[in-house]
Amino acid sequence: MKAIHHIEKQTGKAFKLKKGAFLTVIDPMGQQVSDMVLFNSHDVNEKLSSGKSLDFEESILLTKGHFLWSNRSNKMVKIIEDTNGRNDFLLAPCSKETFEIMYNYKGYHPSCLENLYTNLKPFGLSMDDIPTAFNIFMNVQFDQKGKLSVLPPTSKGGDYIKFEAQMDLLVALTACSAEDSNGGRFKPIHYIIEE
Amino acid sequence: MKAIHHIEKQTGKAFKLKKGAFLTVIDPMGQQVSDMVLFNSHDVNEKLSSGKSLDFEESILLTKGHFLWSNRSNKMVKIIEDTNGRNDFLLAPCSKETFEIMYNYKGYHPSCLENLYTNLKPFGLSMDDIPTAFNIFMNVQFDQKGKLSVLPPTSKGGDYIKFEAQMDLLVALTACSAEDSNGGRFKPIHYIIEE
Repeated sequence: MKAIHHIEKQTGKAFKLKKGAFLTVIDPMGQQVSDMVLFNSHDVNEKLSSGKSLDFEESILLTKGHFLWSNRSNKMVKIIEDTNGRNDFLLAPCSKETFEIMYNYKGYHPSCLENLYTNLKPFGLSMDDIPTAFNIFMNVQFDQKGKLSVLPPTSKGGDYIKFEAQMDLLVALTACSAEDSNGGRFKPIHYIIEE
Repeated sequence: MKAIHHIEKQTGKAFKLKKGAFLTVIDPMGQQVSDMVLFNSHDVNEKLSSGKSLDFEESILLTKGHFLWSNRSNKMVKIIEDTNGRNDFLLAPCSKETFEIMYNYKGYHPSCLENLYTNLKPFGLSMDDIPTAFNIFMNVQFDQKGKLSVLPPTSKGGDYIKFEAQMDLLVALTACSAEDSNGGRFKPIHYIIEE
């Protein structure tokens, strides 16, 4: 039996993943985004880079067969399965300022940025260390003029994406906290590690 | 007379820019890209963020009227003029690995990443600190499937983009070193600072 790890709604987790191990991220109920950031577990100054990944993969939309790359131009993970097939790598993790600036929200609001850095803090990382995340299941549409729109995810309950680690990694994952990104309802995220 | 600063082909420069000052980046000969990165000059852990900028501006293509934002969700510059109108904020600065991995180039090749970090080194920054740059005049096309293509810039000799600093900044600029991004020929970049 492979253990299924639960990330409660609007929270996150961080963990190590060895080179060659597999990580499967599951949307158990459908329409739920999970922001993922990656670091070299032996030197956290090496981290996930959207700019390097889009450049080397020559695509905005990354799915099965693509790699996610680091700021030092090394492969971090390979996407080996992706049953939904729509992920975002353009937008930063939601933060309290996202809700203030974009949605005019007042007061405390849980966010992916907070959930990423509080879970990464025990590993010596700070808020400023968090790069643009790979936003699993996030449905960001763009037109030819570059206009961006965030739509509800197309993922259905049980959809998953499976990664193979290309180096020893420190991984952080969330169950995203932004209303507009998740069809207006917050749900958990599940994940499985196979070594 | 406003001083015109010259950036020789395949090189870069770094300098401070006070809040409220104007920076004009000029393509003097046409078809030449300039990669730009920005830091808060009082705390370089605050830096340019493509993810935050695309998110808050709701667009892949940033031009006149748009702001570039930091990883801490603060406005860094406003684009107040842009005579060419096509810039890229998706792709990482070219590095020696870009030429090795994408173009199978062997041996030393000048790169924007090297030109950014060597010019920023006197300010205490390292290679790992360089974020995805705002690539002025870079013509990256994308289709609806997300496929990316790098085409020659549409900029003509004398085209320029003008920024107004929204905070005290440390700026680094290059004259880009990648063959494919610059119509196959390397040219200088000029810039003017008005305080």
